[in-house]
Parts: sequence; C-alpha cells; structure tokens
Amino acid sequence: MLNSLYMEEHVKEALKEDIGFGDITTENLADDKDYLKGFLNTRSDGILCGSNVFETVYKTLSKDIKIKFYYKDGDRIKKGDKVADIEGPAKYLLMGERVALNYIQRMSGIATETRKYQDAIGDYPAKIVDTRKTTPNFRMFEKYSVKTGGGALHRFNLSDCAMIKDNHIRLAGSITAAVEKLRKNLSHAHKIEVECDTLEQVKEALATGVEIIMLDNMSIEEMKKACLIIDHKAIVEASGNVNLETVNAIAAAGVDIISSSAIVAKAPTLDLALDI
Amino acid sequence: MLNSLYMEEHVKEALKEDIGFGDITTENLADDKDYLKGFLNTRSDGILCGSNVFETVYKTLSKDIKIKFYYKDGDRIKKGDKVADIEGPAKYLLMGERVALNYIQRMSGIATETRKYQDAIGDYPAKIVDTRKTTPNFRMFEKYSVKTGGGALHRFNLSDCAMIKDNHIRLAGSITAAVEKLRKNLSHAHKIEVECDTLEQVKEALATGVEIIMLDNMSIEEMKKACLIIDHKAIVEASGNVNLETVNAIAAAGVDIISSSAIVAKAPTLDLALDI
Amino acid sequence: MLNSLYMEEHVKEALKEDIGFGDITTENLADDKDYLKGFLNTRSDGILCGSNVFETVYKTLSKDIKIKFYYKDGDRIKKGDKVADIEGPAKYLLMGERVALNYIQRMSGIATETRKYQDAIGDYPAKIVDTRKTTPNFRMFEKYSVKTGGGALHRFNLSDCAMIKDNHIRLAGSITAAVEKLRKNLSHAHKIEVECDTLEQVKEALATGVEIIMLDNMSIEEMKKACLIIDHKAIVEASGNVNLETVNAIAAAGVDIISSSAIVAKAPTLDLALDI
Amino acid sequence: MLNSLYMEEHVKEALKEDIGFGDITTENLADDKDYLKGFLNTRSDGILCGSNVFETVYKTLSKDIKIKFYYKDGDRIKKGDKVADIEGPAKYLLMGERVALNYIQRMSGIATETRKYQDAIGDYPAKIVDTRKTTPNFRMFEKYSVKTGGGALHRFNLSDCAMIKDNHIRLAGSITAAVEKLRKNLSHAHKIEVECDTLEQVKEALATGVEIIMLDNMSIEEMKKACLIIDHKAIVEASGNVNLETVNAIAAAGVDIISSSAIVAKAPTLDLALDI
Amino acid sequence: MLNSLYMEEHVKEALKEDIGFGDITTENLADDKDYLKGFLNTRSDGILCGSNVFETVYKTLSKDIKIKFYYKDGDRIKKGDKVADIEGPAKYLLMGERVALNYIQRMSGIATETRKYQDAIGDYPAKIVDTRKTTPNFRMFEKYSVKTGGGALHRFNLSDCAMIKDNHIRLAGSITAAVEKLRKNLSHAHKIEVECDTLEQVKEALATGVEIIMLDNMSIEEMKKACLIIDHKAIVEASGNVNLETVNAIAAAGVDIISSSAIVAKAPTLDLALDI
Amino acid sequence: MLNSLYMEEHVKEALKEDIGFGDITTENLADDKDYLKGFLNTRSDGILCGSNVFETVYKTLSKDIKIKFYYKDGDRIKKGDKVADIEGPAKYLLMGERVALNYIQRMSGIATETRKYQDAIGDYPAKIVDTRKTTPNFRMFEKYSVKTGGGALHRFNLSDCAMIKDNHIRLAGSITAAVEKLRKNLSHAHKIEVECDTLEQVKEALATGVEIIMLDNMSIEEMKKACLIIDHKAIVEASGNVNLETVNAIAAAGVDIISSSAIVAKAPTLDLALDI
Repeated sequence: MLNSLYMEEHVKEALKEDIGFGDITTENLADDKDYLKGFLNTRSDGILCGSNVFETVYKTLSKDIKIKFYYKDGDRIKKGDKVADIEGPAKYLLMGERVALNYIQRMSGIATETRKYQDAIGDYPAKIVDTRKTTPNFRMFEKYSVKTGGGALHRFNLSDCAMIKDNHIRLAGSITAAVEKLRKNLSHAHKIEVECDTLEQVKEALATGVEIIMLDNMSIEEMKKACLIIDHKAIVEASGNVNLETVNAIAAAGVDIISSSAIVAKAPTLDLALDI
Repeated sequence: MLNSLYMEEHVKEALKEDIGFGDITTENLADDKDYLKGFLNTRSDGILCGSNVFETVYKTLSKDIKIKFYYKDGDRIKKGDKVADIEGPAKYLLMGERVALNYIQRMSGIATETRKYQDAIGDYPAKIVDTRKTTPNFRMFEKYSVKTGGGALHRFNLSDCAMIKDNHIRLAGSITAAVEKLRKNLSHAHKIEVECDTLEQVKEALATGVEIIMLDNMSIEEMKKACLIIDHKAIVEASGNVNLETVNAIAAAGVDIISSSAIVAKAPTLDLALDI
Repeated sequence: MLNSLYMEEHVKEALKEDIGFGDITTENLADDKDYLKGFLNTRSDGILCGSNVFETVYKTLSKDIKIKFYYKDGDRIKKGDKVADIEGPAKYLLMGERVALNYIQRMSGIATETRKYQDAIGDYPAKIVDTRKTTPNFRMFEKYSVKTGGGALHRFNLSDCAMIKDNHIRLAGSITAAVEKLRKNLSHAHKIEVECDTLEQVKEALATGVEIIMLDNMSIEEMKKACLIIDHKAIVEASGNVNLETVNAIAAAGVDIISSSAIVAKAPTLDLALDI
Repeated sequence: MLNSLYMEEHVKEALKEDIGFGDITTENLADDKDYLKGFLNTRSDGILCGSNVFETVYKTLSKDIKIKFYYKDGDRIKKGDKVADIEGPAKYLLMGERVALNYIQRMSGIATETRKYQDAIGDYPAKIVDTRKTTPNFRMFEKYSVKTGGGALHRFNLSDCAMIKDNHIRLAGSITAAVEKLRKNLSHAHKIEVECDTLEQVKEALATGVEIIMLDNMSIEEMKKACLIIDHKAIVEASGNVNLETVNAIAAAGVDIISSSAIVAKAPTLDLALDI
Repeated sequence: MLNSLYMEEHVKEALKEDIGFGDITTENLADDKDYLKGFLNTRSDGILCGSNVFETVYKTLSKDIKIKFYYKDGDRIKKGDKVADIEGPAKYLLMGERVALNYIQRMSGIATETRKYQDAIGDYPAKIVDTRKTTPNFRMFEKYSVKTGGGALHRFNLSDCAMIKDNHIRLAGSITAAVEKLRKNLSHAHKIEVECDTLEQVKEALATGVEIIMLDNMSIEEMKKACLIIDHKAIVEASGNVNLETVNAIAAAGVDIISSSAIVAKAPTLDLALDI
Repeated sequence: MLNSLYMEEHVKEALKEDIGFGDITTENLADDKDYLKGFLNTRSDGILCGSNVFETVYKTLSKDIKIKFYYKDGDRIKKGDKVADIEGPAKYLLMGERVALNYIQRMSGIATETRKYQDAIGDYPAKIVDTRKTTPNFRMFEKYSVKTGGGALHRFNLSDCAMIKDNHIRLAGSITAAVEKLRKNLSHAHKIEVECDTLEQVKEALATGVEIIMLDNMSIEEMKKACLIIDHKAIVEASGNVNLETVNAIAAAGVDIISSSAIVAKAPTLDLALDI
C-alpha cells in the first residue's frame, strides 16, 4: 500500500529539500572515485519499517549504490543488530544519509509504537488502528508503518468511509436522520460509521444498520454494555483515552477495533544509524 | 521564515490528501446554508505555534470562514484556554478541521518541547537549536516551530553552511586538509563547522580558523576544557546526549549552541481541539 | 464531490492546453475595452451538468466576467432553452469559450445518458452506477456527472473497496480463501465485493458474509435466482449486457445496483452552445 | 506527435488516479512470485490505436512485464483477433489492467470512428479533420487517434493558426479589416483561416489572400459554388452538419478539408479486453 | 501573448528560487508596520518591457503593494526617467525587489536590442524576428520582449510550423521529396519553410510551393537574386551574419523577414533600478 | 552544485517548451531506422560549460544516443575545436539539437565571460563573484557557469547569508542596531554582510564584528583606505563599476571579493554548433 508512484515523488522532493543547491561540504571533499562501505545498525530495540524507502532514497541519487538488508519490514530488530550493508560512491553515500535515515527512523518508530500497543492487547481479538491525526502530506508513510507494526488501518481519508460525528448528528437532527440521508446518497461500496457517546446513541445507531459503531470516550463498563447490546451486528470501535496502560482493558471489554492517534502522533523515532 | 509561497502549496496538498474525492459524510449532511460557530481550545499547557497555517487551511477551503486568535505564535497557553474563535459554513468548518488541527498540534508540540529545553538552560547564554533530523518535506514547518518555541536554528540544509564530519575528515586526510580544500571552493558567504570528537581535534580545528566547532558526544568535563581552549575564537556547539536532564549542565560547560534532534523528532503533539 | 482544489487545477491545465502561447486571433483583434454579452443555450434536450466548472473556466481567466445560470446541475433542459447569461471583456469571453463548452458538453452528455438509464429502470428500486471505465485523469468529472444524472456511484478507485474478480479467485484458490485472506488484511472501514459468474459462486460468496455480490453477465433468470438466494443479506450488483433495452428487465430481476460503463464511455456530448 | 514527455506524465497521473493509496484487493491476494499470462483481444472490429500508451502504463508499474503486439497503431483489427500477448507479475498485471484498457479503448474508438468517416469520403481528395472540441487535458491523445484513424489534423490550439470567426469579424468591423489587422501582428510562420457563412463572405475572404477559408454550415449547393469561386486559391474547409450520411456529398462538393467534432466527441470506445 | 496562467506560475517559482526558506535579513529587520515608498527609474535609454510581470511579482507577495507605471510596454524611456511609483509594506518591497528587477531588466534589454535592429532597417518593409535560440524555460518572456521591441515573431516551437533544414533534406533525398512527404502528413493549418543555401535550392523550393523560403548565410548579392527569383510567391527570410551593421543592407536586398538570435541571446540587460 | 534532481526537471520542461505537440518536421521526415553522426564544435574561443546538461537533454529524449566529450567543463576551447562526438537515431538527434545548444551556449558564454574577469585580475588574490541578478528560474545553471569559469560564488539566495543594505540600515536606525538585531535572530550557521557607502560606515560595520563588508561604488582610493582600516578582520567585497577595464585596479586595491552582475547578465552566448 506504499504506492511507489507517490513514494518516489515524495523521496525526490525530500532530497531536494535537504540538498538544495548542493551539498557544499561533500561535493568539495569527495572525489568521484572515492568509494565507501558501511552498515545500517540499530541503537534501540524495535520494528524495522521503511527499508524500501531507504533504498529508494539512494537509488534516486545514484544507480551505483548497493544495499543489502538483513531484515525485512515488520521484523523485530535489537539494539546492536546490523540491519543492512551499504556501499557505493562516497559522494552519494554521504549526501543521502540524512534523508534516508529520516524516513526509516520515523517509520520504524511508528511501527515500534504500534507493535507495543498490539502486544499490550495480547490475545484479545481487538486490533489497534490509526486515525487521521497524521503529519500533513506524510500520511501514506505513517499508515504503512502502522500496518507494518501489526496494527490495522482506519479509512484513508474523508472519501472512503462515512463517519457520522456529533456535529453531523446535530446538522441532520438525529443519528437516524443522518444515516437515512447518507444511505440515499452514498455509494453502495462505502460503509457508514457512527460515533456514539452514550448507550442510547449506540442503540439508535444499531437500529439503523450501520456497519461500524464507535464508542467515544466511554468507560470500560459502558463499553462492555455496548458490546453486549451490539452483539456483533456491527463492528465496534473504541476511541479515546487509549494508551499502553488502558489498551488491554479496552480490548477485554469486547471491542473489535481500538483507534488511537498516539501510535503515530506521539511515537518517538527509532534510533537507527549509518556507520561508514 | 515560513515562506508563504511554500506554505500555501503544502496546505493545499494536505487538504487534497485528506479530502480526496470529497468528504462523503459532510457533503451529504451539511446544507449550503448551515452555519456553525466554535472555538479552538487547548487541553494541555504549551506554546502556541501555527496559527497562520491554521488560518490558511480554512482560507484555502472558503473565503467565508472567520477566525480570531486570542494568542499569537510563541505565547504560552494553558489547559482550558480558548485559543481562537471560528465561525463559518458548516460544510467547510467540518471538512478542514482535521487538517487544520494536524498542523497546529504538531507545530505547537515542537514549540512546546523546544521551550522546555530552553527553559531548562535557564540563565546560561546557550541556545537550543534544531538539526536536520526532520520529517521529510515538513522541515520548514518544524524549523519555524523551533524558532517559535524560543530555540535558535541550525543550517537549513546541506547547501547553506559547510559541516565537516568524521567521514569528510577521512576523505580529505585531516581536518586541516579538509578546511583548506573547502576554503578554496566555498562561497565567502558561507561558514564552516567542524565536528570534533576529541580535544586534539578541537585544537586542530581551531587552528584552521573555522567559524564553528562542534563538540560531538563529549563529556561535560571535556566540553569545559574545549570551551577554554577555543576561548570565543569560534562558536562552540555541543551535540549528543542532549535531553531535559543534561541540557543545563551542558550549557553550564560554556558552549554557545546545543543542538538536539529530540525537540523535533521526539516531541509529542500538543492537544488542541475544536469545539463546535 | 467535485473537490474544488482538484477541479481548479484541472481547469487551469485545460486552459493552458488550449491557449498555449496565446490566442493569436483574439489577442490581436479584441481591444481591452471591447465588451460582449451572450448566452449559453442548448440545442438538445438533456440534463445540465458542469455549471460550476463552466464558471470556474471563466473565473480563472478574468474576474470581470459575469455569469448567471437559469438552471442548476441536474435540471432538465430542453432544446432552445437559455441556460445562462454571460457578459464581460470580449478578449476573455472568446478565449475561454471552447474550454468552458468542452467541460459542460461532456459532463451534461454523461448526466443525460445516465438519466435515460435511470428513467428506463422506472419504479424499481435499482440504481444505475458507473464503473472504473473512465477517461484517464477525468474520472472525478465523470463520476460527478453520473451522480448529477441521477445515478449512484461505485468505488472511486482500487483503494476504497475490495473487489474480488476471477483472477483474484484463481490466485487465492477459492472465493472463500480470498475473502478470508482479505478480511485479515483489509481495513474494517472497507467493504468486499465478489464477482460471481454462477449461482454456485453466489452461494459461496454469500456464505463468506461479503457486503456486495456482483452477478457478472448472468441471464435474467439466473439473476432472479441469485436474488432469491441472497435474500437481501448482501447488496446485489448486476453487470454485463446493460443497455437501454435491457436495463428495465435487469432491475425487475430484483438487483440493487446495475453497473454500466456505457453511461460514461459511450455517452455522446450534449450540444450546448454560446451565442454572443 | 504523441510527445513521450507529456505522455508518460499523463500515464503516471492516471495510475495515481486509479490506484490511490493502493489496490487493496490485489496487494492482499497476489504474492510477489505469482506470475500470469494473458492476451489482449478485441470484441469488435475497428482500428487499433494506443499500443504505445498501453505499454507505457505497464512499464510505469513494473519493468518485468512483457508485451508483444501483433498489430500496430492504424491496423484494422477484427472481432476475436488476438491483439497482443502479455505476461508478468500477477500483482502489476491486475493493477494496471483498467488504466491500460481505458487508454486503448478510447483511442481505438476514436481511430475507428475517424476511419469510418474517411472511408465514407471514398476516393474524393478531401480529408476528415478534428476540431478543438476535445476532452479537457486529453487532446494530445485524441488528436493522435484521429491521425491514426486516417484523418488529418486541424490546429493544435489557439496559438498555432489564426481563425477569424463571426465575433472577431464583428469586433474588427469586417473580414478585410480583421485580416489586415492580423497580418500586421501575426508571425509570418502562421496561417489565417476565415469562417464564412455566405458566398459574399467567401469572396471577401478570398480577396484578402488568407490561406484557409471555412464554409460554415453551408448547403451542398453553396459549397460547390464556393469551391468554384475559390478555385484552389485557398484551402477550403467544410464545417457543420458533418455525419456519416452527409460526409460523402460534402467531399463531392470539392472541399479540401471536412472538420467534425463527432469523430472525437461522439465516438464510442472500442471493446478491447484482457483475458488472463 | 504573455499567457498569464504560465506567467504567474513562472513568477511564483522565481520568488521561491530567490527567497528560499525566507529573507533572513529583511524578516528580522522590517517590522510589519514599516512602510516604504520608492520609484523605479532607468539609468539607460531603452524600451520598457515587463511592467505587467514586475507588478505580478509584487502582487504575488502582497496585496498591499501599490504600483503606478508612467510608461507602458514598448515605450521609449530615457536615462533618468521615473518609470513607476511603488509603495507598500517594507518587508515585501525589499523581498521582491531583486526578482522584479531581474524580469524587467532582461525583458527591457531584449526589447531595446530589438528596437535597435528594427530602427536600423529603417523604411524597408523587412521585419526583424527572433529564433529558437532562447534561454531554456524563459522563451515566452523573450518572445514577448521581441514583439514589444517592435520585432515580429518566428514560430514558437517545433510544432507550429515545419522548417526543412539541410539534415531533413538529406534524410528525404531532396527538397522536393521532403516537401511532398510533409504535405501528406502535415496539418493544413501549418506552413512549411525551407532553408536554402544556394539559388538552385531556392528554385527547387519555390517550385514546390512552400510558404516560406529561408536564405541561409547568403551574400547580399545572392539574396537580391533570390528575391527576384521568388518574386513574392513565397515569404523570404534572411538568416546568418545579421548584426547592426549588416541588417540594413539585408533589408535593402528585398527580403521580408530577417531572423537573428542576437536580439535575445546577446542582448545586455537594461539598467533599471528601484530607489526606495 | 548542479543538483541533478533539479537539473533533470529543468531539462524536461525545456524540451516540452521546444517540442510542444511534437516536431512536425522531423517526425514526418525521419524514419525510425535513420541514424546520424555528427560533432559539436566551437566557432569561438572560450570556456566549455554545460557538457553534463547537454548530455542530459539527449538522454532524456532517447537512451540510444551516444555522446563523447573531448573536453570537460572548465577547459579552454578554441575556435574550430571538435568538442564532442555524437551519434544516434536521426529523429532524436535533430529534435534535441536546439535545446541542447541553448544550454551549452549560454553556460559556456557565462563561463567564458567570468574567465575574462578572473584573468584580468591576474595575480591578485581577489576573486570575481556573481550576484543575484540572474535569469528567473535559471540561477543554478548560471552560478554553476560562474564557478566553472573560475569565479567564486556569492550567496545562493536571500536565505543563506544576511546582507544589510541601505534600506535595512534605515529601518533599523543604524548599522550597529541592525547587526545587533540580526545577531539575536540569525542562525549561528549564517554570516552577516554589510553594504557600506562611506569609510565611516566601514568603521561602524567593522566594530560590530560582521563577517563581510561590502564597499559599494567606492573610488579606488577609498577602497584602499577601507582595506587598510579593515585589515583582514572581515572579508572585503567590492561592488559597483566593475568591468574588464576596472577590475584589475579594484583587485589591486586589496579587496578579497569583487562582485559583478555583468558576468551573467551581460555575457553573450558562446557560439557552439552541431555539425551533422
């Protein structure tokens, strides 16, 4: 799902952002014949993500750089592991280092954070999913990282799934009115989700036959009741107050999906480094 | 320094990323005449950053949205503060909400983190500065946020300041050789910085007359010695092991500049929300 | 759903395509002070579609052009009807004429064709929907036109709804295997549709619980049976051999959705003209 | 004339339009090692057009797809003919199918329609040509298809040939005045065409020495007279009421060029399909 | 012919090129309330060209800048003349100065050089025209400047007029063969020009009926003979060895068009300056 | 410093500018199997610059064109020298000729002009440098040409070095105030330059400790005095009235840097030609 047509353009722009009119240090100190070898290693435990993007950064700069990864996206890597070998012209190896690392550190950071949440869920069937709280113009990379970390994905954007929130309910008059209006206009290929704050709303939403019901900021007790009410007639999504301490209990309440912006918006980067 | 020509394009792309073929929920539930009022508030303490971008998101969607900010970029805001009023056509208010928040939450998060570091430095003259470890194609926004948070800025990219690192030294033979080669080729308008791991290197770099000397991963004791050796004949930058616990001691060692990727790469977003 | 951020860019490119280095006729014959009035009329009966795009073409060229539409998108217009008044600087009125008409003629043509199909369906609840057989880089306009003509929409592209076709079934081994594999990997926000050639396949698909079942090139008799088997447990889509002669009988078979590329790919343009 | 620099960009955008965030069906069902063979065949008689674009679609997705065409652009193909062999990774074969077909079906449709008109003209020297009534941002493909179908081409856009229409005549005062004004300002590399409604206008246009005279919506009788008057001193173009029934008689009237928007704007797509 | 859709994009890119991450001097020294007045004056005699582009540069930066030109494009301006008044926010006045001047200095330089050539031609009917020897991606501005300076224009690029050169003749076998092959394939809307080195070639070209004959690097005597041979049956263009000393004699030889790359490629910029 | 990511895009756009809808002459006269050989020669003495861009133009059109340069960028070439061999498909050889030459002629022209200035400086240590008076959106190519010609470079744009000019001084109140304000806000990675008209200003600037002092339009005598005053405590740049006659005397005055827009803005193109 990392559409390479978009990915390659993003990488090209990122290289232009960082190189500007040229790398005035390296271009003046590296001769064309200087050749270097090195390896990518990790200074923390985590989940590798972005190896393909890392390679694309270097491939965009030069055909002569060779990279061999010892792990693939989604693999666990441990502090001190050699993740990849890299060799090629010194000029391009140094020129692309920062951008290549910027991608793989961020992407691996998100995958690692996601993995922690999914691990915390343990054996419960619930899946941790992302939200639309992403870095502007970096969403595709972030969603791919969540998937790589073992999470599942929510809608890509505002056009591939309808989500009725409190303001929409107010505009339409009621959940029922909103769903009816949507059913008339929506593509049959798209689902409808309703955000519910109370069990009353859950019951109303369920009666409309929507495919997904979100329990917004409910207590564990309320969530349990909601799951019993819904009884697998809709997908149940929990949202709000999701963190590593709470996520297991939320999963235990019986929900199918736990959405959290934290796995993307608050994930620290993973410390991968290039030793040359 | 948030060049509006770039910023407006970035915002436009971000809106396209999030809206796609259309907001299938809002477009079907909001009538053209529906009008909403709301306000932007903060759920955490922090530094506001990105108000101009927030407005640009909405201005790009509709001329009819009115926004009034009660704080300006760089101001401290406290949990519960009303940050801005917003009103306009329901359709666009809801359609732009997520993107507008995505910018202001990330930017304020970075400004807030930077502020913490600068505050931890206290009365020492040292300034916290950013690095090139930024989110690909989002650097301008991140650098602006660091500045807004009270930090200073390092070079924008590889073309506006030369920085001689260990690999460059190896390629050139020595620090002295590298600086000489650069002096011959560099624009007189650009500075040279040398990354030093040892006091020997500091002495060699100082002798070449470079403008900036970076002390890379040195102990506090070494830094103190380095500052005495350099004696204000070059700008001294400390790098490595910079965190909220160590930053004051590093500043106390006498350095001018403390660079840290953490203020950008590990800053959590600030929880701002739109109540409509 | 005609995302104006995309639409305005498309219009700008289309004007560049048609004007090139300049309108060498008009620029040399129209003085800046020449001012013209005219009106948009229709030479055939049909459904108006694209009025907003028509206006955007002219607005992009000049702020001084005034346009007043007497009908709105989706309205029936009859041969000879005055559809809109237009006036402004001669130079821009003539320079934008062709591009403005190219949009509105194609869009109205598709809306008109769609309307014919939906009308032919009559009182049956089935809806005519489009397919992905669209003109490259013109899909958003074509989908909007189908909607405007009274049709419903299928998925936008390959990423907002899964559709299992014969080749996918072969790759996975069976419909059941394909659905299982997809359920594990798909976002909970997306639906699954299965393309079925036989009633056996319909039964297998139904058992997997997919949201949409497509009856591909089935006879009317088979479709009736399929609808009985499915019994509203999935949305039923008919595809293949859909034309103005067959569409009513297909609808009568009990399907929910009738998809046809003809409403876009074979729709003639509607003859609208500008009289100045 | 299908400038590959533009063509490759158009194809890339079309793939992004159709694939979006990824082909969620195929990416989850096709393994990297799955390999498929198939062939492109035609379900109707017609003229093949767009083979190069078809290949470019697939080449853009993957270097590993092999395509062998048995016909070349401009060849007649008959219902049931195998047009090309294709094989390669299942993932990319399925992912590019729709876009590749969308180009070749439309382009072959236009070439086929053009061929019908040119065939209807028979032995007369007249050529059928296109107009500027094209799909926005798809003109280069449509013009190439007309050429491939045996038609000739009119000007590309407003900047490569001057065409004086009724409104221009009104602005300048007369045909003579318009031509004089243009001659003074136009590049010597560009021609002038005048649109004439009456024989009086034809005479006036002829006297100015313009290179092309268009007979707009004239009867066959008037056209014959006009051709006699013009007597090969200008190129004669007929326009208006051109269809498969009238085109032979128009050609017989002695004109050089018959322009018609129908060969592009009203051409149905040709039914080519991929059997895998 | 300065298509504003292209022009505005070019200006925006040029501002991004010059401002980069921001004007670090002005942004730190100019307060938002600082307001400046100034005027554009000329330090040399010449022809003004680019006033519209100059205004667009500033309009792109800020709506609050007011500019009043005392001359219009094509006017002669003399050393010391005040060309325009300008006032507005100091920040934007200073930030846009260089880019605005870069356009108007170059464009006026070309217009001035062109004027000199046309003036040197004196009363002869010949016109000086440009060539395709232009600055990459700046052609539209250069052609407009030639026109503004009183010159005429040659074809815009390779697609709006055919020009048969020596290599084309060699490929086709002869001038006659080349013209015949072209006539069959070219649009009736486009002209053909043949480049001739000898009077024999002129005769052959003339016999084919091409619209334009170029005399390439001929002596004045040969040109005179060529003009007599051609006798107004084709447009005669002289090329080669055109400079301010030779241009009058070339015109006197009877040619219609004198093409020269010097008016663009060797024109010095005109010294216009902003006094604030 | 000719960032290939930008360069390749610029070349692609330039080819689109010149080829438009296609090379209507060559495409109709060159068969796919026609193959040509030729060579690039020079008709004037100068410095070669742009060989890499020349190759990129052809590589962008076709992989089958082979080019072998006998000189490299920066080499002196003499009238009549064969600079490169070129061979490949006739179609692409002819189609790319003009654009390839347009780059190399302009770039070599600037390199040649720069070389003349640097040669005129002779043994003095001063370096000729460029300014920001460049052709919009062509600056990177022009700066590279100056460097290739033996000159040094000034700042790239407004964001990589601060330059305090008269208007900035007026806004801040004094040179001292301006420098103080800047020091507080500027990155430590950037230098400050002050433009001085008088020796008083030089003294004030020197006292602030800025890195570069520009002597603007001073007499040779004043420059000498300024150099004595500055005494190597800042880099000294001379500006104004720089031409081939004055540049040696300016260098003799003791300055480090002599900036001149003439080496770019007034450099004639170098006459390189392709003989095929």
